[in-house]
Amino acid sequence: MFRRHYLVAAAALSAGLLALSALADQSKPTPTTQELLAKSGAVEWRQPDPNNLLVIQLSTGRVLIELAPDFTPLHAANIRTLIKQHYFDGLAIVRVQDNFVTQWDDPAGDDGGDPKKVRSLGNAKNTLPPEFTRPIDPKLAWTALPDGDVYAPEVGFSEGFPVARDPASGQEWLAHCYGMVGVGRDNGPETGNGSALYAVIGQAPRRLDRNLAVIGRVLEGMPLLSGLPRGTGPMGFYSQPTQRTVIQSVRLAADIPVARRPVIEVLRTDSTTFATLIEAKRNRRDTFYAVPAGKIDLCGIDVPVREPTSAGTAVHQAH
Amino acid sequence: MFRRHYLVAAAALSAGLLALSALADQSKPTPTTQELLAKSGAVEWRQPDPNNLLVIQLSTGRVLIELAPDFTPLHAANIRTLIKQHYFDGLAIVRVQDNFVTQWDDPAGDDGGDPKKVRSLGNAKNTLPPEFTRPIDPKLAWTALPDGDVYAPEVGFSEGFPVARDPASGQEWLAHCYGMVGVGRDNGPETGNGSALYAVIGQAPRRLDRNLAVIGRVLEGMPLLSGLPRGTGPMGFYSQPTQRTVIQSVRLAADIPVARRPVIEVLRTDSTTFATLIEAKRNRRDTFYAVPAGKIDLCGIDVPVREPTSAGTAVHQAH
Repeated sequence: MFRRHYLVAAAALSAGLLALSALADQSKPTPTTQELLAKSGAVEWRQPDPNNLLVIQLSTGRVLIELAPDFTPLHAANIRTLIKQHYFDGLAIVRVQDNFVTQWDDPAGDDGGDPKKVRSLGNAKNTLPPEFTRPIDPKLAWTALPDGDVYAPEVGFSEGFPVARDPASGQEWLAHCYGMVGVGRDNGPETGNGSALYAVIGQAPRRLDRNLAVIGRVLEGMPLLSGLPRGTGPMGFYSQPTQRTVIQSVRLAADIPVARRPVIEVLRTDSTTFATLIEAKRNRRDTFYAVPAGKIDLCGIDVPVREPTSAGTAVHQAH
Repeated sequence: MFRRHYLVAAAALSAGLLALSALADQSKPTPTTQELLAKSGAVEWRQPDPNNLLVIQLSTGRVLIELAPDFTPLHAANIRTLIKQHYFDGLAIVRVQDNFVTQWDDPAGDDGGDPKKVRSLGNAKNTLPPEFTRPIDPKLAWTALPDGDVYAPEVGFSEGFPVARDPASGQEWLAHCYGMVGVGRDNGPETGNGSALYAVIGQAPRRLDRNLAVIGRVLEGMPLLSGLPRGTGPMGFYSQPTQRTVIQSVRLAADIPVARRPVIEVLRTDSTTFATLIEAKRNRRDTFYAVPAGKIDLCGIDVPVREPTSAGTAVHQAH
């Protein structure tokens, strides 16, 4: 067992009844995420709308992404159009920049490709309004975090996504946390269309907030995007085509027969269990953590996902 | 060029004289890191003390780590003792947990190993005082960041490292930013000794601050630690020995003949160029970034490193 349990809370090994009140009782170790989720109710979980669930089949495995049309509806619509045309099938991961992003798009659109072979966008739009921020929508449930943020006046979660807000301007936007997915573009703010996408694989690059359209979050498969060799070309682009990971297909779950659709559930961010989880992360105290941080940052929380299977419910963190 | 320059500042392409005053002139694009470093003076760079420079030869390439004995002197001394005994030679990367850490140690010390084969620590100590925080040292240069921090009352840089401070308690500590290296331990705070080390490969897990000893920073080779397949065992441990990356050797630069020593330089964090770099990151404004963040978080800044070579000076970010 020597050092095997490094960085693990011994609390995970402790039995005992878990209750919300356990968080207030400092004589007991803080419940782990797994323990809290095991006590959650079925109504606290939701299945993403199949029209918002992207099923990406890489040569190395499956990645699931949930679109966020409440925040970037025009981009979501354009991406759906591209998917229905099978636009992404056969494209590739072309860029992995350490501590920044993994990007996939049409290799022929990069300097290393043959511009004559650039794939047509078909019925999809070539430019879109930026959708970098949107007016704060009071109809969306809002779970605020209490410890502030370096970049924005307010941060919290809506609809399962990390969100930053500025009440003075009345705007809100999805934050560039680990696992969030954005739209690559050229210099002009309207040059993004969803045909080039990136996922954050390092320290949250919050300077991108309000400068790029964020279209959703990776629910499953982050290791397939983050655990790749870094590109050695400028900005982490792969210098050799052989280094790229091929995208075999991208489908909307809604276009897959129900029997073969991925089944995945996301913890509701307006649920009691999610609120309890936030507090547990803020005040983790057990035989390993002697000094609770007493704080949590927006990108320090991964909204939990799980996959119900016939063999039971496998609970895991998104990343 | 289609989308090739996604996320790059067009400023990188712009010519023109760079000066500190350029930052105040909003009609000009903010200089890039590369442009600012190209204008730096030789005295603004330092070579790490060879007694603090770890040279790790993996089967996949070289990793350089700078120890921080001002913050964790007993751990630095113990790690030097282990290295001089060639303790790490033949050990391996045993754990890669997505969005968290890459860890290397003696595989026989893990559950999957043969405990009878656990390597002796020799002259090194088996336990050490925690060194999780230290009294604020007014003799160390301090470059404060102006935008606050979710976790600590004050943050900034000392001696090339990201540091958090609490004036009320008079304590300071190295922060768990991307690329920082810490000491694995069991539950007891004195159970770490430096024979098991981890590097941060995801969103800064600041909850670890003040609970673990941070011994330094990866100066070179982060992609060799971060771009690895994630472990599928509990906590990201590899379930099969064949998945591990072998550590061929770890040496102190001081123990390598001068002619073969790695030459690497780190930008001084008390230099004018570093201060200018911080401001440039806070207020990046160019044809790509229409909305400067106006802020920067502690772990959003990588202290630049460079490798002077006979062919010229290659400047690159640490990670």
